[in-house]
Amino acid sequence: MSIRIGIIGITGRMGTLLEQAVPASGATFAGGIGRGGDLAALAGAADALIDFTVAATVSHHAALIAASGTPWVLGTTGLTPADQAAVAHAAAIIPVFQAANFAPGVNLVLALAERLGATLPAETHDAEILEMHHRQKIDAPSGTALGLGHAIAQGRGVDLAAVMQSGRDGHTGPRETGAIGFAALRGGQIVGSHSAIFTSATEQITLTHHALDRRIFAEGAVRAAIWLAGKPPGLYGMRDLLGL
Amino acid sequence: MSIRIGIIGITGRMGTLLEQAVPASGATFAGGIGRGGDLAALAGAADALIDFTVAATVSHHAALIAASGTPWVLGTTGLTPADQAAVAHAAAIIPVFQAANFAPGVNLVLALAERLGATLPAETHDAEILEMHHRQKIDAPSGTALGLGHAIAQGRGVDLAAVMQSGRDGHTGPRETGAIGFAALRGGQIVGSHSAIFTSATEQITLTHHALDRRIFAEGAVRAAIWLAGKPPGLYGMRDLLGL
Amino acid sequence: MSIRIGIIGITGRMGTLLEQAVPASGATFAGGIGRGGDLAALAGAADALIDFTVAATVSHHAALIAASGTPWVLGTTGLTPADQAAVAHAAAIIPVFQAANFAPGVNLVLALAERLGATLPAETHDAEILEMHHRQKIDAPSGTALGLGHAIAQGRGVDLAAVMQSGRDGHTGPRETGAIGFAALRGGQIVGSHSAIFTSATEQITLTHHALDRRIFAEGAVRAAIWLAGKPPGLYGMRDLLGL
Amino acid sequence: MSIRIGIIGITGRMGTLLEQAVPASGATFAGGIGRGGDLAALAGAADALIDFTVAATVSHHAALIAASGTPWVLGTTGLTPADQAAVAHAAAIIPVFQAANFAPGVNLVLALAERLGATLPAETHDAEILEMHHRQKIDAPSGTALGLGHAIAQGRGVDLAAVMQSGRDGHTGPRETGAIGFAALRGGQIVGSHSAIFTSATEQITLTHHALDRRIFAEGAVRAAIWLAGKPPGLYGMRDLLGL
Repeated sequence: MSIRIGIIGITGRMGTLLEQAVPASGATFAGGIGRGGDLAALAGAADALIDFTVAATVSHHAALIAASGTPWVLGTTGLTPADQAAVAHAAAIIPVFQAANFAPGVNLVLALAERLGATLPAETHDAEILEMHHRQKIDAPSGTALGLGHAIAQGRGVDLAAVMQSGRDGHTGPRETGAIGFAALRGGQIVGSHSAIFTSATEQITLTHHALDRRIFAEGAVRAAIWLAGKPPGLYGMRDLLGL
Repeated sequence: MSIRIGIIGITGRMGTLLEQAVPASGATFAGGIGRGGDLAALAGAADALIDFTVAATVSHHAALIAASGTPWVLGTTGLTPADQAAVAHAAAIIPVFQAANFAPGVNLVLALAERLGATLPAETHDAEILEMHHRQKIDAPSGTALGLGHAIAQGRGVDLAAVMQSGRDGHTGPRETGAIGFAALRGGQIVGSHSAIFTSATEQITLTHHALDRRIFAEGAVRAAIWLAGKPPGLYGMRDLLGL
Repeated sequence: MSIRIGIIGITGRMGTLLEQAVPASGATFAGGIGRGGDLAALAGAADALIDFTVAATVSHHAALIAASGTPWVLGTTGLTPADQAAVAHAAAIIPVFQAANFAPGVNLVLALAERLGATLPAETHDAEILEMHHRQKIDAPSGTALGLGHAIAQGRGVDLAAVMQSGRDGHTGPRETGAIGFAALRGGQIVGSHSAIFTSATEQITLTHHALDRRIFAEGAVRAAIWLAGKPPGLYGMRDLLGL
Repeated sequence: MSIRIGIIGITGRMGTLLEQAVPASGATFAGGIGRGGDLAALAGAADALIDFTVAATVSHHAALIAASGTPWVLGTTGLTPADQAAVAHAAAIIPVFQAANFAPGVNLVLALAERLGATLPAETHDAEILEMHHRQKIDAPSGTALGLGHAIAQGRGVDLAAVMQSGRDGHTGPRETGAIGFAALRGGQIVGSHSAIFTSATEQITLTHHALDRRIFAEGAVRAAIWLAGKPPGLYGMRDLLGL
């Protein structure tokens, strides 16, 4: 019998794509709710829940879903430390899968970026991160661009906050050795492009991920839900799913 | 008899490249001066002068070179309105050639960017400008990136200052229709790369110029000097030289 | 009253997109036919016809549509000289709009490529054309890549056939001055990307068109149909529509 | 006391760059020979030899250098199986370091390409390799492009020869699942650019290496020579040097 997946946030753009991705994966659509829907009933009818809503809902969802015992795939971003603590609390009771970006390729790119950061000396190879997204995006850099920065910083054994340089404009002074720079482009309906660029005096190495279709995120979340069902309680992520 | 070219600013990185580019072009090197050199003597010995120094010298050079009657190729950037007025004053007396970027291809790219701006509707095609330069560069966006922005704005019949958005970082809100965005990357010894990127919901058109070798600027300036010698007084630029 | 548009080839992938693009443009969908449908009846009910079928149908359609007097937008490619003669014959009687690529941006890129070819000397700036398409594409280079090559060749005043170099593999010898090179990439569901790349010893200028969504071709064809209705007999193309 | 390095092939373009790179690295230039020079004397005066010549010299050099006992860094390419056997024979007696490309970043890119090949399913992610080189290059694909192809094939557990598709032109048919495609661009004085491009229906992952300056190869060879001196006999490569 195929796994039953419930969608929290069914009325948004992501909800529509998830509703299509569930049957395409072989799973069963257990129903979906929008704002004000009956989450307890949905949790009771599903083997796993996928939740792409807004940060303000996270603490409430965490308590309610933990009580239901249903595995929870969480794609909501912009969480506060308190929200994140609520997620960790739930993960002690139920299996929780959390990711900022469910595209499998993005997560492979994060792993390779960490390796580039670890191998190419910060003294010689300046690291820059470039991202482009659709015109509706309201913040910069993107969460995935920050993830790339964290991966490179981790490879270098430094803290991103200490070396991050974002939004160059005006008199910037010369680039500092070891800095990780960020730049953001916006336009059209670009789903999401991210590049990590390492430039020395004699070579340039670039690692790029282009999401070509928003469906990639829905498919990744459904794959995560199928993988998560039946796991013991804990907080899981794309690296666990992909075995990176 | 080949044209004699004098170099103002011979001691800098650009001066060295100019000294090599002059004989390579078939012209004769008439000498060069650094800070405190005898400009009047150099002007007397040359059929054209090439000047890559700093903005603070421009008014002084304008008066002195105009008095000498020698054609003046000016590559110094960062001029104040008063500096620019001094250049205009000189151009009433002698031929003056002024450019921010002497790479012939850059100037062709500027002309094409204007046409892209004039043809692709600002309502549907979001325009972004991306530039990358070496780690020593101290400001952003580059002068050539601003030139690209001006070209697109002119094609659209708007003022760049009214639509420019540079250095996105943090909560930016959605992209405004008609905005022209700028982003800057820094790293290694990149001579200079510039892209104008137009993105609609269904297509993306990109026009890119990569300067692969700093010699390109020296060769362009020498070409301008040879072209300028013998011209009537006036203020000339790359568009005149290239017939764009 | 809005213009009525009939679709020839309604059952294909392009037909579906056209059926959606017609009402989105404000025009009226006058019906569509697949193989064996009643073309005369469709022509009688429409103010313009859009035809994306296969080359084998072109001569037959040309005669029938010319007899009906209905304007004809033709996107079918791979025509023989005899097919093309039939199109020309029809264009003496009715307005005919013919294009290999209905993306407005592609056609602007063609115009700019011709200008790059005319301005950048073939002796110094090597021209290469790179295209990428989905894995189902069965030939290379694409028609649009060939169009780019023709545009550059025309700008240079040469015949493309005399300078074209496609599919480099094995011992090629050094690149010939003035050659126009072609390379093709295939993968995934890439709608179509085309670049014209001019590289000298010191600079590289690249002009790229990415089609991000197949809808772009349907929207362009509908726009052409609306533009074509009411025009006098003749053979029109994207340059007429865009005023390039 | 600094290590003494001798250059075989001092008269070529690479020889000049090597002669500059040796002192820049802190090593001592022990002399160099061109065609017909005294290799035995040079070997006697050096702690390591760097050899960038032509394949026809390899067997002769292998015997002579093995007899001298001096470590040998070999950058010559295009070796026949017999040449390679002579190299292996020498490596039983002296330490030999062999590489097709001494840029450290290229070799890191090869390692990452293998991982991409191992992780991204061949059924969904089409792999293509694009390279660009200067106009003098006489063959395609480049040795490094082939190296990228081998790395991806190894990651997938297949033989490159069985899946390689190079130089698409004309009627190619649809792309075969699991194929690794190659395309070559030529122009200007491009030192060498290589990309591995993986494209699925929903994402594209690209890994690119641009060599910006030919010095990178000389510096890498000198670094290899310093690393090699004092090693036991054996055949070493960039992966050993870089600890990849």
